[in-house]
Amino acid sequence: MKRITFLVAVATVTGVIAFAAPASRHADQEAAPIFVKTIPPGYRDWRLISVAREEGDLNDIRAILGNDVAIKAYRGAKLPFPEGTIIARLAWSHDASEENNKTFGRPQSFVAGVHKNGVQFMVKDSKKYASTGGWGFAHFDDGKPADEVVLSTCFGCRQAVKERDLVFTRYAP
Amino acid sequence: MKRITFLVAVATVTGVIAFAAPASRHADQEAAPIFVKTIPPGYRDWRLISVAREEGDLNDIRAILGNDVAIKAYRGAKLPFPEGTIIARLAWSHDASEENNKTFGRPQSFVAGVHKNGVQFMVKDSKKYASTGGWGFAHFDDGKPADEVVLSTCFGCRQAVKERDLVFTRYAP
Repeated sequence: MKRITFLVAVATVTGVIAFAAPASRHADQEAAPIFVKTIPPGYRDWRLISVAREEGDLNDIRAILGNDVAIKAYRGAKLPFPEGTIIARLAWSHDASEENNKTFGRPQSFVAGVHKNGVQFMVKDSKKYASTGGWGFAHFDDGKPADEVVLSTCFGCRQAVKERDLVFTRYAP
Repeated sequence: MKRITFLVAVATVTGVIAFAAPASRHADQEAAPIFVKTIPPGYRDWRLISVAREEGDLNDIRAILGNDVAIKAYRGAKLPFPEGTIIARLAWSHDASEENNKTFGRPQSFVAGVHKNGVQFMVKDSKKYASTGGWGFAHFDDGKPADEVVLSTCFGCRQAVKERDLVFTRYAP
């Protein structure tokens, strides 16, 4: 159950969703790259797309960043996202801040703590990732790419936002 | 009570805290600029320092961004913050995402909605803002600077983080 929750999590707010092809294409999939194996360099310097909070088992606070191509596309409401778009999802523990609460005089303040739930990316390359809607997906824990199984079992999820080119996160102005 | 809460809020997690001089310096204060009256241009393009969540009356989700000087100082753990440092605090409504929750199968997902609780800045200029620890403070609602009273009544707050040059927000790696 926990595993399923995590998979759905990967497939949702994260901005990096598994998007496996239908079962009938499974043989082709094995030959075609679907998953990004290296962490895009410099992503921590990218600009902010939005922020989010996940309760439940994930229990984190997150930021979604975009490279220049992504930010330009978001601001111009350009869909589908152009080639070279990369969207990153970072997450941290959602920690109560005793320091802040002391000043507020009541418990209400939460800040980003340690890294949590990995870092995720979706990379637009329509040729390379033709079988998955033009998006390559990645999830890294401590710099190591996640098992492909984690990313390959959530075909349905991003269909919910097909009209937004499979991207859940909206731009926060 | 609500007003007090707001003032404390301004003074806390925001990264932009009112820091009035002691009462005895009040006459000097009126001559010296303490408050930033114009919005620093291009701040939405700045890099991410951290994210945070305020419950209670504020009820928002926020991002703290920094200009290049700020980011360099944070990453180098350089204190006090150098001249030219600017830290921005943006906040949005903390909105449940029905779209995401549908995918998760349970209510757990929150995203940034509309702008909320203004945008705030702290600007380091040791000469210009000598009477307030070298920091100039600003709060804008819909582009309009807040009443100085809002920013001038929270002397005690940032003293809590005097050892971090009056800045509450820590860098999220």
